[in-house]
Amino acid sequence: MKPPSSLDELIDALRCLPGVGPKSAQRMGYHLLQRDQPGARRLTAALGIALDRIRHCERCNSFSEEVVCAMCHSPRRDASLLCVVESPGDLLMVEQAQCYTGMYFVLMGSLSPLDGIGPKDIHLDRLLQRATDGVVREVILATNFTVEGEATAHYVGELLRAKGVRATRIARGLPVGGELEHVDSGTLSQAVRERREV
Amino acid sequence: MKPPSSLDELIDALRCLPGVGPKSAQRMGYHLLQRDQPGARRLTAALGIALDRIRHCERCNSFSEEVVCAMCHSPRRDASLLCVVESPGDLLMVEQAQCYTGMYFVLMGSLSPLDGIGPKDIHLDRLLQRATDGVVREVILATNFTVEGEATAHYVGELLRAKGVRATRIARGLPVGGELEHVDSGTLSQAVRERREV
Repeated sequence: MKPPSSLDELIDALRCLPGVGPKSAQRMGYHLLQRDQPGARRLTAALGIALDRIRHCERCNSFSEEVVCAMCHSPRRDASLLCVVESPGDLLMVEQAQCYTGMYFVLMGSLSPLDGIGPKDIHLDRLLQRATDGVVREVILATNFTVEGEATAHYVGELLRAKGVRATRIARGLPVGGELEHVDSGTLSQAVRERREV
Repeated sequence: MKPPSSLDELIDALRCLPGVGPKSAQRMGYHLLQRDQPGARRLTAALGIALDRIRHCERCNSFSEEVVCAMCHSPRRDASLLCVVESPGDLLMVEQAQCYTGMYFVLMGSLSPLDGIGPKDIHLDRLLQRATDGVVREVILATNFTVEGEATAHYVGELLRAKGVRATRIARGLPVGGELEHVDSGTLSQAVRERREV
């Protein structure tokens, strides 16, 4: 006996959430209907509204409800620094680290020729235009340290250097609190190679 | 800088899902908007439809889109057996174990006087009526082995015995593949006490 079809469809639809497999989706579907219908109603509304309202900021390309987002409008941010990240989630992580007060540019992806994602798909034309506007003095490349993220940082770095814009890359090394015994050898060898004066 | 307010509300609303904390909710919200808008649209629709259509079957009290669900209608099920579970999710677990072909009654909860959940809240009047309809020969109590589930099974068992209906409880013991070394002492002592002839 299968669950009623609308519940079955709900369970299936819940699997679009990252990290949610068939078992979790089943538990979530039953939980929503049995124990938290107000929560489910609120989620339905929130999803609909977010899908309707969220667009991309014209300047930083991150999520925004306005044409230009609040951060890009803010006079408190240092407009001479531009931090390049892959996704709005990455932007939020940098913000939550409270270590940076400059501007951002969100690529919404990374270069991946095998998946057909080229320079145009990650809006490099807009990034270049932004980086050469005369205000930006330094572009900080904060893409992931994955194969795609590294390739993207390298490619963007070359582009910027050709235009005479200073490009830097965030540091790679042991995490705070990290112990040599527990770190992978790739990270450790990078940390040794990229050692700095004390 | 916070995310746009509709995204913030979506992240907050996602926390109604079981096992989803602030970090996962954030990841889910960004994922849906950045990588899976079709999935998010489908989820919105599925939630709305399920909330709208799902009600409780008049006979078994489980989720159903009809007044009486397909299982209760089915001539293939053994109407002389009635299995009592706490939730529709538990019913599904018993069904997935493919060990039972009788009927069900779903309490939609368990007795919990401290939370103000009494016999009426778990529909025991309907269960008693059902169990004494002359067709049911045995009621199998398959509530959880938690304090509330045990209390519920005990209470319902007494009610049924008083009406002359046979009540049984699913077995407690070591799980299949379980090793004595790794099982908790409560389970082990129960397994010893409830040993059976071989």
